[in-house]
Amino acid sequence: MRVLGIDPGLTRCGIGVVDGTIGRPLSMVEFGVARTPADAHVSARLLAIEAELEAWLDRHSPDAVAVERVFSQHNVRTVMGTAQASGVVMAAAARRGLPVALHTPSEVKAAVTGSGRADKAQVAAMVTRLLRLGAPPKPADAADALALAICHVWRGQAASRLEAAVLAQSTRRTP
Amino acid sequence: MRVLGIDPGLTRCGIGVVDGTIGRPLSMVEFGVARTPADAHVSARLLAIEAELEAWLDRHSPDAVAVERVFSQHNVRTVMGTAQASGVVMAAAARRGLPVALHTPSEVKAAVTGSGRADKAQVAAMVTRLLRLGAPPKPADAADALALAICHVWRGQAASRLEAAVLAQSTRRTP
Repeated sequence: MRVLGIDPGLTRCGIGVVDGTIGRPLSMVEFGVARTPADAHVSARLLAIEAELEAWLDRHSPDAVAVERVFSQHNVRTVMGTAQASGVVMAAAARRGLPVALHTPSEVKAAVTGSGRADKAQVAAMVTRLLRLGAPPKPADAADALALAICHVWRGQAASRLEAAVLAQSTRRTP
Repeated sequence: MRVLGIDPGLTRCGIGVVDGTIGRPLSMVEFGVARTPADAHVSARLLAIEAELEAWLDRHSPDAVAVERVFSQHNVRTVMGTAQASGVVMAAAARRGLPVALHTPSEVKAAVTGSGRADKAQVAAMVTRLLRLGAPPKPADAADALALAICHVWRGQAASRLEAAVLAQSTRRTP
């Protein structure tokens, strides 16, 4: 399963692609950041982020896209731009028929470090270890995007297996 | 000048198209609402809004798109969806090379009623009068979208004239 993770943002949008299956070592495919200039119009910035994401989707053909769930209570100053960027990337993924999953920052931290309250350094350290990288991915937005992708490989597949099990159970019950 | 106004939202996205020039009567071209089901995934809802907007842009070929500027302090429960929808519509307009303008709710109210603190009924009444409609546009989101378009016809052209005047002035100064 190949997952493209996105840490949305107008100024820096982290993107990370991971291949993996539950119970087997993960592998890092590519990570990076889409940047847009703060002095450009918001519509031009959103379009640039969309174009960058389209290029990543073309290049890697992921099976799913995982996006950080944005909350309005955090970073009020930048949250609107972050929400707008997340809207654009979700629509771009949906346009290709790709499943889009949202994970909260706590879910991502808990998935990769075991604690929903881990700090950025701890998340970056675990991403480095889990993907067997030589150094922590820079900048932090790229590390967060990789963490999202890892979270989705694990949570997404677990959820799919659970759904399959429930379905099998209910099928067995109704003869 | 033809302006397509958008009152962004995930559940109801108001859309209104107005033709107009400063100092001449305005005319209403079309208004309506793009609705998406609350039980669909947010990525599917954003894609449906984008598809609906694309159809309006095809049908009316506006010269500009005016979008309500979303603030994080209002309606915290729905503001993230509203911001995501606004991001998608801005990117879709920018993809066609259309200028995108943002106006705050107070700017829109002030433009159509003379007061930045007018209520919804007052805005709807003025939209009805200015566009010479038989009845107030329903639902309120469509009336708000028409008010945005009217606001942009007036503010946008005034801003363009001001820019032209400033440019002419500065051109005259540098021989």
